[in-house]
This record gives sequence, C-alpha cells and structure tokens, in this order.
Amino acid sequence: MTDRKLRMGMVGGGIGSFIAPVHRMAATLDHEAELVAGAFSSDPAKSKKSGAALRLDPKRVYASWKAMIAGELKLPDDQRIDFVSVVVPNSGHYAIVKALLEAGINVICDKPMTVSLAQAKDLQRVVRKTGKVFALTHNYTGYPMVKQARFMVKSGVLGKLNKVVVEYPQGWMAGFIDNPGNSIGMWRMNPKVAGGSCCMGDLGTHAENLVRYITGLEIDTLCADLTTFVKLNKLEDDGNLLIHYKGGARGILYASQISAGEENPLNIRVYGTKMGIEWKQEDPNYLLLKDPAGLVTRYSKGNNNLCPEARGAARLIWGHPDGFIEAFANIYRAAFQAIRAERAGKKVPKADFPTVDDGAMGVAFIETILASAKSKAKWTKMKK
Amino acid sequence: MTDRKLRMGMVGGGIGSFIAPVHRMAATLDHEAELVAGAFSSDPAKSKKSGAALRLDPKRVYASWKAMIAGELKLPDDQRIDFVSVVVPNSGHYAIVKALLEAGINVICDKPMTVSLAQAKDLQRVVRKTGKVFALTHNYTGYPMVKQARFMVKSGVLGKLNKVVVEYPQGWMAGFIDNPGNSIGMWRMNPKVAGGSCCMGDLGTHAENLVRYITGLEIDTLCADLTTFVKLNKLEDDGNLLIHYKGGARGILYASQISAGEENPLNIRVYGTKMGIEWKQEDPNYLLLKDPAGLVTRYSKGNNNLCPEARGAARLIWGHPDGFIEAFANIYRAAFQAIRAERAGKKVPKADFPTVDDGAMGVAFIETILASAKSKAKWTKMKK
Amino acid sequence: MTDRKLRMGMVGGGIGSFIAPVHRMAATLDHEAELVAGAFSSDPAKSKKSGAALRLDPKRVYASWKAMIAGELKLPDDQRIDFVSVVVPNSGHYAIVKALLEAGINVICDKPMTVSLAQAKDLQRVVRKTGKVFALTHNYTGYPMVKQARFMVKSGVLGKLNKVVVEYPQGWMAGFIDNPGNSIGMWRMNPKVAGGSCCMGDLGTHAENLVRYITGLEIDTLCADLTTFVKLNKLEDDGNLLIHYKGGARGILYASQISAGEENPLNIRVYGTKMGIEWKQEDPNYLLLKDPAGLVTRYSKGNNNLCPEARGAARLIWGHPDGFIEAFANIYRAAFQAIRAERAGKKVPKADFPTVDDGAMGVAFIETILASAKSKAKWTKMKK
Amino acid sequence: MTDRKLRMGMVGGGIGSFIAPVHRMAATLDHEAELVAGAFSSDPAKSKKSGAALRLDPKRVYASWKAMIAGELKLPDDQRIDFVSVVVPNSGHYAIVKALLEAGINVICDKPMTVSLAQAKDLQRVVRKTGKVFALTHNYTGYPMVKQARFMVKSGVLGKLNKVVVEYPQGWMAGFIDNPGNSIGMWRMNPKVAGGSCCMGDLGTHAENLVRYITGLEIDTLCADLTTFVKLNKLEDDGNLLIHYKGGARGILYASQISAGEENPLNIRVYGTKMGIEWKQEDPNYLLLKDPAGLVTRYSKGNNNLCPEARGAARLIWGHPDGFIEAFANIYRAAFQAIRAERAGKKVPKADFPTVDDGAMGVAFIETILASAKSKAKWTKMKK
Repeated sequence: MTDRKLRMGMVGGGIGSFIAPVHRMAATLDHEAELVAGAFSSDPAKSKKSGAALRLDPKRVYASWKAMIAGELKLPDDQRIDFVSVVVPNSGHYAIVKALLEAGINVICDKPMTVSLAQAKDLQRVVRKTGKVFALTHNYTGYPMVKQARFMVKSGVLGKLNKVVVEYPQGWMAGFIDNPGNSIGMWRMNPKVAGGSCCMGDLGTHAENLVRYITGLEIDTLCADLTTFVKLNKLEDDGNLLIHYKGGARGILYASQISAGEENPLNIRVYGTKMGIEWKQEDPNYLLLKDPAGLVTRYSKGNNNLCPEARGAARLIWGHPDGFIEAFANIYRAAFQAIRAERAGKKVPKADFPTVDDGAMGVAFIETILASAKSKAKWTKMKK
Repeated sequence: MTDRKLRMGMVGGGIGSFIAPVHRMAATLDHEAELVAGAFSSDPAKSKKSGAALRLDPKRVYASWKAMIAGELKLPDDQRIDFVSVVVPNSGHYAIVKALLEAGINVICDKPMTVSLAQAKDLQRVVRKTGKVFALTHNYTGYPMVKQARFMVKSGVLGKLNKVVVEYPQGWMAGFIDNPGNSIGMWRMNPKVAGGSCCMGDLGTHAENLVRYITGLEIDTLCADLTTFVKLNKLEDDGNLLIHYKGGARGILYASQISAGEENPLNIRVYGTKMGIEWKQEDPNYLLLKDPAGLVTRYSKGNNNLCPEARGAARLIWGHPDGFIEAFANIYRAAFQAIRAERAGKKVPKADFPTVDDGAMGVAFIETILASAKSKAKWTKMKK
Repeated sequence: MTDRKLRMGMVGGGIGSFIAPVHRMAATLDHEAELVAGAFSSDPAKSKKSGAALRLDPKRVYASWKAMIAGELKLPDDQRIDFVSVVVPNSGHYAIVKALLEAGINVICDKPMTVSLAQAKDLQRVVRKTGKVFALTHNYTGYPMVKQARFMVKSGVLGKLNKVVVEYPQGWMAGFIDNPGNSIGMWRMNPKVAGGSCCMGDLGTHAENLVRYITGLEIDTLCADLTTFVKLNKLEDDGNLLIHYKGGARGILYASQISAGEENPLNIRVYGTKMGIEWKQEDPNYLLLKDPAGLVTRYSKGNNNLCPEARGAARLIWGHPDGFIEAFANIYRAAFQAIRAERAGKKVPKADFPTVDDGAMGVAFIETILASAKSKAKWTKMKK
Repeated sequence: MTDRKLRMGMVGGGIGSFIAPVHRMAATLDHEAELVAGAFSSDPAKSKKSGAALRLDPKRVYASWKAMIAGELKLPDDQRIDFVSVVVPNSGHYAIVKALLEAGINVICDKPMTVSLAQAKDLQRVVRKTGKVFALTHNYTGYPMVKQARFMVKSGVLGKLNKVVVEYPQGWMAGFIDNPGNSIGMWRMNPKVAGGSCCMGDLGTHAENLVRYITGLEIDTLCADLTTFVKLNKLEDDGNLLIHYKGGARGILYASQISAGEENPLNIRVYGTKMGIEWKQEDPNYLLLKDPAGLVTRYSKGNNNLCPEARGAARLIWGHPDGFIEAFANIYRAAFQAIRAERAGKKVPKADFPTVDDGAMGVAFIETILASAKSKAKWTKMKK
C-alpha cells in the first residue's frame, strides 16, 4: 500500500443511478481512494442532495462539472482531486472528459467513450497531449478468469485462433415491446443522449472489448443486422454480427435487450486449432478449457495454478466467490497504479486497464456496425 | 401394440458405419420392427459379411440396392419388407429413395435428403404420386423436451417470437487443420458424395429443422459466411448465418466442425415478447423456461405436467435419462404409425416425423446458404 | 455377433409394470436376445393378455411361473428359453429364482435379491451348485462413466481412499405424507411383499452396490437412522447412514423417498489422498475428476481417452447421450457373455455384471441397517 | 445514509491474515465505517507494521488489545472507536470480547465464538448486562438467496419440514495426509488455539448456523462420527452427523477438510411435505425451488420477485454477481444498524445478524458433537 488515499471526484451519479454506486464501491474497495468531491447532477439541487447523502463536504459538492473543475483547481495540491469518475450518459462524456484532462485531472470514464468517432479521436489526441491517465470501465476484463483466458491464448494453449463466438443477450426491454409506454424517457433509446446505438453501444462494445482483451484479435470487416423491436425505441435493441478478424479467424457477436428472460450473460467461446475456451460472466469464477481429446477442464479463481494476472485479480481464495464489484475494482486498481505515477510526476506505466485507444476502437466498432446495417448487412471494413 | 412386427430393409450401413447401428437399434427398440433384408454396401462381399454379422437370412442380403428391390418384390406380400432405411452418404439418397418409392416400398432416409433442390422436388413429386411413406431422420426432433418446447411456442407461452439463436458446433475436424493428412478420404469433405456443403449440410440442416419444428418459423432471407479451415476440405467446415424469418423474427444459426473441444451441442434459444426457452441436446431431458420476472423454470422429461406429445415420447419416467437412441426411435415409431396404415391400405395419417417437405426445405436451405456465401453474405431470399 | 439370439423368458412384468419394459428393451437392444415366453402375472388372464400384447406365441404365455418352467422343459433344446428375467416384487424372487436355477435355467433378477439373508445365502449355494448364470440388475453400474470411475480408483488416480458420500434421494412419496390415502396398496410399503425395508431396499442397495463397484470398499460397521414419514407406510421411507469401511475410509450413505422435488439423483463422490471424483446418475455421461490444484476435469462418454470398459459400454460416440436403457442393456450384454458360454457348455467366464454375491451383500446390508436402526443407531458390524 | 462513518478498531488481522482483509473490505464497502485503530498482532512490531500498511495514525496502532482498550477509552467520544472486529484465532476470542464489551465497546467477532460452552454462556451474560452490540460473522447468512430461502420456509412454501441435508466439504488438508510435515504449526489443528474441534468448529458451525437461519430448526439429538486423517492433526478433520431436529425433521450434516478437490461448497437442501429447496455457496446468487410436479425453479438475486430481505441484501441487480465480500458486508451492515442505535443511546433494534445466542448455540453444537463422538456415535442430546 501507499502513503495516502487518492482523492476521487465524480461527475454524474446522483441519487437513483445504478452504475455510480458501483464505481464508488469499486474505487474504495481496496482502501486506495476516497470520494471527496462531485457534481452529481445537472440539477444543482439534486447534486447537493446527492453529495450530502454521500457525507461530502458541502463545499465540494458542485452545481456543475464546470464549477467542479474551477473549484478544485483553486484548492491546494494536497487537497485537490486526483481523478474524476465520469458516469453521465454517453453524449455527455466527450466535453467533460476533455475539459478534465485539459485541466490536468485524470479521468475514469464509463463506456461507450463517446458518441462519435471524431470525438473519440479528439480524446485520443488530448490524452496524448496532456499525458494524463484515462481509463475506460470495460469492467468485464477485470474478472480474474478473463485474465486467465487471455493468458492461455497468449501462451499458445489454444493454437492458432479460428473462431470466436461472443454473446450478450439481455431481456429487460422485452416487456416494453407489448407495453411500449413503460419505456418512455429511457435515455438509452434516445439518440441525442445515447448516440447512434442503443444495444450495440451498451452491450456490443463490452463484447467487442472482451474479445479483443482475451484474444488480441482485431476486426477486419463485419456484416451487421440491427433490429428495433420496442416501438418507442429510436435505436436498435437487437444486433447480430458476422465478423472477419484480421488473420483469418471468423466470428459471431451478438447483443440483445429483448431476449426475454436473460439477465446478463456475457459469454465468450474461443476456438483454436488445439483447444477451445469458454467463460460466462454470470458464473465468472470459472474458465473452461475444452480439449478435443474429450476433456473439459474447469479452472477456478483463487488457485495457485493460474497466471500471475489472474491470481493478482482475485481478492479471495478458491471457493469464495468474487463478484462484479471486485472485477470492477480491478479496473480501478490498475488505473490507480497509473494515477499514482502521474501524481508523483513519474512516467505513467502501462497498466492493465482499458485505455482511450480501446475506447476509440469501441466507437469505431459502433460506427462500422451502423454503416453495415444501413447498407443491409454489406461486409464493411472496420473504421479507424 | 399391433399384430406383427414390420419388416425392415436397409441400404448402406455395413460394418463400420456409425449411424446404421443407431437406425437398427432405434427401429427395433419398441419391438415394432425387425431387420430382415439389406444391401449394406456397394461392395457385395462387404454387404454379405455385414448381413451375416446381423444374422440375416443370406438370401436376403443383397449385392446391391437394385438387387434388393428386385429380390424383395418377388417375395410374397407376407414376407416382403415393409420399409427400407437408407443410410448411404448424401449423394446416393436420391436414386435409391426414388426407386424404392416407385417400387412401392416405404422409406426412412438419412438427412440431408438430396444433394440438389431439383432432386428434392422430384422426390416430393414421387412421394405424392406413390402415396408411400417417406420419413427423414431429423432425429433431434424426437426428444421429448423438444416436443414440449414446440407445445409451449404453439400455446403462446412465449408470446410473439422475436429471436432465435441456434448453434451446432462440433470440434472433431479441428485436429485436421494442422494435420490435414488425417482427413484424406472423408466423404463429408468430398462434393461428389456430400453435395455442395459439408458443415451446413451435416449440421446446419439439423439446426434449421429444429428451429422450424419448435417455432414453425420459416426463413425469409439469410446472409451466410462460410469458411474452410481444413486445407484438404473442398467444402466449408464452419458456417455462420444471419436470418430474417417470415413475420419479423430475427435469428442466428451457426454450425461448425472446427470448434475444438465441442462434442455435439445442438442448442436452441427462442425468445418471445413474454418468455424465452432453451434446450440443449447434450442435456436433452430438460427444457428451460425463462421468465423476465427473474425465474428460470426447468421442466423435465417423464413428468405429468408436460404436453401429451412430450409425455408420449418418453420411454421412462422422471430422473431416468432417455438418450439419443430413444429420441431416434421416436422418429421411427411415428413413421411406423404411417407405415402400418399404408400397409393396411388405409389413409396414411399425419404423424410426428419429418417429411419429404422438411427434406426439401433443408436442401433449399443449403442452396440458399451457398448462394448467399458466394455473393459475399448478400441477403438472399430462401429458395423454394 | 454370434450365431443366434438368446431366447428370453420373463416372470412378472405384465401390463402396467414400470421396470419390465425396461428389461425387455435392454435385453433386445443389441439384437442379442428375443422374448419368447413369459408368465407375466399371477393372474392367468392378465398374463395371457400381456403376452398377447407382446406378440408372443400363446402357447408360451403361461398361467404361472411353475407352468412356465414345466412347459419350457418339455420343449426341445433349440426352442427352450435360455434365460429368464425375474421382475416380480421382492418377496417373490427367492422361490422363483431357485426353481429356475434348479431347472437348469439361467436367471436375470431384479434387486434386492431376496427378503432375507438366509434366502440370499441359499441362492448363493444354488448358483454354485447348479453352475447356472445369475445376474442381478444393479443397472447403474452399467453406465460407461461408472466404469471409468472404477478404473480410476483401481489405477490409483485418487490415491488411498478416505471418504465416500453417496446419496439417493427421491421425492415421489412426499405427496403421500399429507395425503396418505393415495399410497394405499403400494407394495413397496408392505413388509409382506417388499421385505423388511422400503427405502433402503429399493434405493439404498443401489447406492451400496455403486460404492462397492466403483471403490471396492466393503462396509465394516454402520450406524443407521431410519424414519417413516408416510403414515400408512409400514416401512421406512428415509434412511441415513454413517459408515466405516474396512481399511479406514469413512462414509455417508443416504436414501430417501420423501425428498420433495427430487427425481432420481443417485450421486456419488469419492475422495482419496490425491483426487476426488463425482458422478451423477441424472447426468450420467460425465465424470468429474477433482484435483486439489484447482482443476475439475470432466471426462465424457464415447471418447478414446477412457478405459476399455467405459469405451465398450458406450453405444454412441461423444455428445450423443446414452441413457438409462443403454446402461441397463450393458448388464444384459455382460450376462449374455456368460449365458452363451453356459449354453455352449463352456466354462462360464467372469463378466461385468452383478452376481449372486453382490445380491447377498445387498441383503446383508439391509439386515445390518435394520439391526442398527432398531438399536438406535448403534454401530453395527456388517452381517455376512 | 447517516451523518458519519462509524469508527472501527481491529484486534488481530495483521499482515498475512486471510480473513482480516475480508472484514475490512466488508466493513467499509457501504461507506458506513472506517478503520481508525488496531492491535493487529500480539507481536507489537508486527502490529505497528500492519497498522502502517493500513495508513493508520501510528498513535492508534497499539501493541496489544489491552493497550488499545486503554488508549481508546482516553480519547474523546467523537474520536473513540465505535466497535472492534475481533479476528484472532478461536481461543483468544473470549477474553478480548469480554473486555471490550465491559469497556463499553461494541464487538464484531469471528466464529466459532469461544472454545467452551462455559465461556459462551459468560459472554451471553456480559452482552445482556452491558447492552452492547455483539455480532458474530456467520457470513454465509448474508447472501441474498439465503434470505430468500429463509423467507420461503417461513412462508410455508415448503410445507412442514422433514429433511435437511447440509454439507461443507473442503479439500485443502488432503495434501497433508501423505505429507503431514506441511501442516506443522497450523493453528486450526492445535487444541490450545482452535479449541476442541478443527473441522466441525471451522466448517460445521457454519453449516449448523445456516440450517438454523434458513429453517429455524433446532437440534434435539445428534450422533457424530469424527475422524482424523492428517497424522499431525490433534483434532478431527472430517465429521459426519445424523441429526434429529426438534419437531421430527431428520438431518445429515457433514463437514470435511480432506475431501480432495473440493473448494468451498457449503450446500444445503431442505425438504418439506410440499417442496424442496437447494442453495450452493459457490453459486450463491441462485436458489432452486423443487416442485414434485416436475419443475425446478431457479430464483435469482436482484429481481423484484424476491422477498424484501433478499432484495435489500443485493448490491447489484440481476445478472451482476454479488460475491463473498458483499455477503460478508451484509452482516456488517446489519450490525451497524444496531451499533448506530447503541451509539445514539437508543434502544438497540433486532437486526439481521448472528448474535451471541447464535454463537452459544454453535459452541454447544461443537461440545455435543465431541461428546457423541467420544461415546462412539451414541445419540446425544444437544447441550444448552
């Protein structure tokens, strides 16, 4: 451990948010950070109330993110926030993140990173220019057994990769199909807030990131079929892709919000010439290695037979389930390594968290999908 | 039970065949038929030896299927075969089946039915003209819980159907990618014997048939991506499809022979506006009903709470696993209902087995896939 | 295959029987036998009707088992039955089996073998004296992966065995607890027909046999707790045992008929100094090997990496589920090896089926349990 | 949320401890407490180093727990610790807890509570006399689906309870059987530190507590078989119990540390006259309800169809796994309700955490087991 806790600020995440409490628990799980400031809502009263509920010093609960930047910059260095977690809806990310970075503040940001590739590229530029830390919470890569999967692929256990099947079906919007009224006002369905995609932006980007994290495979071309089942939805709520990866591997990637009865099964199967692997987010502490000789071997979290990254990512030994929060906290913990270096004026090390380049890849992925879908599933080259 | 066992003949299925013993066990499991004749190989010596191993009367072990037809027709009606199971490789089906039907002999045939849609249509015509029974062994529809799935869809339990994901990955060819020499001579990889498709013909047609059996959905258009990973393979060994079903449902269907470490997981998930269901061939005695309220209910074979078709298809009560052979036997048992009617000169009833029309649909499916793949995944209208 | 099918007779198993059809399907699955005679009920009319439904020659459908023995003995050797399957309730086994053996007829018999240890010992004597084949249908040992489990234990994969947990809970009697009237007339609850035990005789003996088959462990002493929950039941419907095996291993064995909602989960876990294994009857085609290093390896049926006995016991390759009937048929197939030798006047080989000694061990097990339970769970030496 | 964080102290849990970090993460997960003081080791230097690693004010890192009590009592009320977590080995609990309570400090303590029933009864007395809060970390009752199980039993969903099977096999000591040297110095095996029991104290008490929490059933008599497989172990490492619960239900409870290959499967099945339920700690976010009609319904965490206690115990919605730490944190969160009331001088409410009476029941359970085992599995009345 290090000498002090990092000081955390937050933009968005007022009372009622689902993801903001996850960020706050994840950030503080390892006693490496504490929340000290926030602009929790574009409604100053709600921001104030949210800050009070979090027991923050009222002086550091701001009416807007701009006020927060201004206010924090005035504080002495040993009080000022070290980083800010940005948890507003998608369309808000770009301006906030950019301003934070340019104000010299490190950023941890929800995905998808931006609502356009142009924005994403600009953020890449700003990150490089400022030298600040930017981490994107593709939290599923924080699970120990995802790291083990990555290790096995890299180690050649699977042989040359031939096929990847990744799926991410949810079912919570199915009920809106027959009762669309219930979905009114959902920001995910609103292009102005969510960007050009609902389902693929929310879920598909996690799937794409997971594939890339585990396999290193990059998409060459894809062919997309998007559908909107919920009448009031202005964006797609179901998306199915055929993928050609660079190097010859083939893939299926699909995501859905209308797969009635599914909860959150982000599942991936990777097949090489020698072996296959399978990992399931809803049963995250296990990884299956499938041997064509007729063996399926289950590796489990918290054992010494795993790679160092997987061992390091487990907070508990075997048989004591690590969950979603712990995986999320692993993204934070890795980002903190970089942030501590940045704070200390040292060279920021490469650490095991999703970067601005991953974010840009995700946004390019969305735009490629939209282009392919518009052209009726024409094979479309991955945008850059 | 009825007064006598049906007399079964077989074309193909000599010593060493995988599927022929399954046909023979399935056909006789319920004591409703007995094998009395066969032309087990195009090699007369092998046919003879195979027949001897099966304890057949040597007079009824024929040197060729033509000889069998001729020989059996000479026998009195109370000795002659009632039906023939055709278990030769794909390209042999058409001529044999046609000749049998035209000779007045009922047929049970392996899938895919033929190697061209023209052949398939001709068989449709012949079946109609002759009035004989033709059953295709899409055996997976014989499982009790597949029948329960079909019942639930028909009963409206799922609401309007929106999405179908069906997968059928095998891995046994993965080993040939690096060691292609081992695959030399495999008939499935040879267009002259297998027809225009390897993986989609062998596995994909099962998947398509299963979807149609359970949901009644017919393909409107599809978009296919086929790949050949095994160098010596002249046909595809991996295929991924996007599907638009008539009526608006969307689908993914994929099959593979290079998914290293997979055995035989033909799995299907169907999602409606109200509920989802899931069935897995490797765990066939269960059906999952997924309720968006947060419940997954497992129905199991052999219980009184199932529909009559599912109850009737189980040979054993709950907790006593029915397997592949029993499901296969259900196709035979249903076909026997029709064959007994035909033998008795009665109107042949509609029974619960795949017909020549299902076979034609499967062949049309293959040809549509090949057309789409050739055009680089262009959406292609299902052929008729 | 051999030159002719064995001729099978049956005692018991008239219309409505659950287990008799299983015997008939199992016996004929491999085309190695055919049913030619039977005394299907102590009610001659029912026997006749049952025989007709099975398409037997009416002359060989007998009014009683005594009549069957007499009638068959009069037939020439090349028509007479080769063996008889005895599927009457427990208390009927002894006299029938003894008479059959003494008449020179081989026997396949349901379990438990007899209703007293004295009877069991007499049968041991008769089997030895007559030299006829006697097989007991502890069918669960017929599963391929049970044979693999046995192989792994014998090969020392587990190290020295320390603990065995075997459970066999069913739930079908739970409904009788509140509505005892429904259970009236159940023979399993009637000491005159079932013998001294209901649950342990029906289920517990399977569990004991399974442990012994897999591990070779024999019970030294046990301590039993039996309970009757169904008011009209004169015997126990739930039983829990602590066991000391010879050589120092410890065990738990329990069986139940009132475990509401359980179907037929006969499950076993064996732990040695090096590894553990687990097998579940309701998911029978897999065997788990548990390595303390943090790996659980699933072996699956139909693969070449299994021992010869497991390979030989599978009728189908990987991923094509073998079920209860196929496992049952493996007992028959093994018994047929012995019966063919006996018929040919050759030395009867040791084959892989449960013997009269296994049956006697099962009856001794029941009597030991009853003695321990009567003495209020006193540790009781296994009877011989 | 409330106005301030509670101030936490810790006794034990220096560098290298497994359970202390869990306590610290669990205590702070909801931002309701912060660690401010500790006596982390009986070795003052180690305590100092451990406190520094936790970034504590050196003045509040004490050389002994006695020094901590003395030091904290000198602090003003608004700085003094509100509660202490006691995480030393078993034999240390009694004196420390007693002193803390008598000094007016609330306590959260690891299980088993004490090493003798006399100590346990004295703590019951002290808790009552002082009115301070005492919570015992039987953390498994913190899982949401355990609370749902309890609710279902209480609501009568299962009918009258008849049978409970609870198992808790671990395998980590199996390796010491053949290599006993590795186990030298393990405090769990040392009666002076662990008390009279190794396996049943560590694991069996969790199992007993879980049964009681879910079902409300109390043990009437039990019959125990304890074994020591690891040669250097002075206590048992495997224990199997038959249980008669008050009111007529029967049970099996077993725990083991030598079940090679098992990780941490604390599993429970409860059967009533109507339904059965099953819960597994290694797959904690699901609860199975087994209906004799042939349905197994899986309830899952984070859905609105659950009881308020289960909903309240989930930190995340469906499909986002809660883990061991979150369950542990639920014990803390419930204790904090009581501690805040105590701090505010209000009547301490009944909250959902294990109490000193649960602790005493656990110790009585251990002593009853030891008495039964000593008498060779004689049925022994539960001690009070």
